[in-house]
Amino acid sequence: MAELSKVSLILGGARSGKSHYGENLAGESGCHKIYLATGQAGDAEMVSRIAAHRERRGADWQTVEEPLRLVETLEEHCAPGTAVLVDCLTLWLTNVLLEGLQPEDESERLVAATAGLAGPVIFVSNEVGLGIVPENALARAFRDHQGRLNQQLAAVADLVVFMAAGLPMRLKGPGKDQTA
Amino acid sequence: MAELSKVSLILGGARSGKSHYGENLAGESGCHKIYLATGQAGDAEMVSRIAAHRERRGADWQTVEEPLRLVETLEEHCAPGTAVLVDCLTLWLTNVLLEGLQPEDESERLVAATAGLAGPVIFVSNEVGLGIVPENALARAFRDHQGRLNQQLAAVADLVVFMAAGLPMRLKGPGKDQTA
Amino acid sequence: MAELSKVSLILGGARSGKSHYGENLAGESGCHKIYLATGQAGDAEMVSRIAAHRERRGADWQTVEEPLRLVETLEEHCAPGTAVLVDCLTLWLTNVLLEGLQPEDESERLVAATAGLAGPVIFVSNEVGLGIVPENALARAFRDHQGRLNQQLAAVADLVVFMAAGLPMRLKGPGKDQTA
Repeated sequence: MAELSKVSLILGGARSGKSHYGENLAGESGCHKIYLATGQAGDAEMVSRIAAHRERRGADWQTVEEPLRLVETLEEHCAPGTAVLVDCLTLWLTNVLLEGLQPEDESERLVAATAGLAGPVIFVSNEVGLGIVPENALARAFRDHQGRLNQQLAAVADLVVFMAAGLPMRLKGPGKDQTA
Repeated sequence: MAELSKVSLILGGARSGKSHYGENLAGESGCHKIYLATGQAGDAEMVSRIAAHRERRGADWQTVEEPLRLVETLEEHCAPGTAVLVDCLTLWLTNVLLEGLQPEDESERLVAATAGLAGPVIFVSNEVGLGIVPENALARAFRDHQGRLNQQLAAVADLVVFMAAGLPMRLKGPGKDQTA
Repeated sequence: MAELSKVSLILGGARSGKSHYGENLAGESGCHKIYLATGQAGDAEMVSRIAAHRERRGADWQTVEEPLRLVETLEEHCAPGTAVLVDCLTLWLTNVLLEGLQPEDESERLVAATAGLAGPVIFVSNEVGLGIVPENALARAFRDHQGRLNQQLAAVADLVVFMAAGLPMRLKGPGKDQTA
């Protein structure tokens, strides 16, 4: 069994193995496991993604679905000996924007609450800023919000990992041996 | 001379120095060198890219062009003492989709065949999942297929490198000293 | 105080903490600090970004604005004991293209001049090649130009860092301990 960091942040692109890595972190900890799904099964593509994730995780995961009220849901479920995997912050941020809430306010509230949670939490989040500048102003705003949230959470996290092709690069935490 | 891994995977973005790094791996091995080009000279832009690559490599490379039948071509040419550089899997996957083949089946077939090849192979592949979510459903499907293929090959590869600005980050292999 | 490398290159995506990391490098050096802004306040979005950057840096920075004549401006201001932060090469390259200049020529001129500068320089530049291939030919050309410039500068730089979520991965320089 490996001890789980208080706050972990798993970054990466689409299909980079983020969720799978987060599931393994939780599994190796021996904790009770909660999967906090922020995605909404709004279309066939999402329904199929959600079903595939659920099947892979197996029956020893408790699933909680909450697209928007992330702070309250974390405060309700986080506890010593329980690992909560939030999958993912990119869908949550999308829901925040669709609901007309202020992403800066919601992000700050999440970051502030994270430090006080009663048990370990693993956040999965997308890195979306490494392509060409989007022509669409909303897309540009979204990647700014996402980048800021990732920076703020990375600053309070104990473990930060960047995934590529299913393999982790550790940016912060006990195994990091590159100082830059 | 540096010994070449059995299966190498060079990941990175556009113009990150992937091909050049792969060519150097092959060159330092002292092996006979085969360049397996998957790109098709379909338009002026591709013709110009292919010519520039060919000029840089020089005359000591044997060039084999195969846009689609990658497994068969690898099985024909891989041999002890020969380094085969596949440039690149992103163009191959594009050709698979254009031809109406199933990318999951073709990817699985490639990954399965890779383990049994008679000589070392170096795959070059693009990381395409680190930008904003594409509005185009085909583009979203493509980055899912590419991400899955990269993960599957990384799992069987002996060496995995992520390139940025011509510089390598080693994700897997003998020189990796970050455990995450 | 930490000694500043002769030529530093800070790479990363949008909102990855590049400017902030560059500012810290300059600040820790104890040098006189010059912020060389290449962005033009052409629209409200840029005006707001520029103001936010300026406010964060504080009053101990001298600001020089130059969208295009980067080599001449560097040669004028670089000096021993002065740290010049160029923010950023992506906006400069955009300006080069908008002005109808040849990006290859301008990039080569910049790289050649960089080696001969009289004091330390820190370049901030975007990695834009890690998303799906853009449909727009101009966008494809831009990411090729940007990728080539990043490679050329990385080759002459003493320190190269890739940022994600405000955290650095060192690709080149004294602290690099991954050899690949």
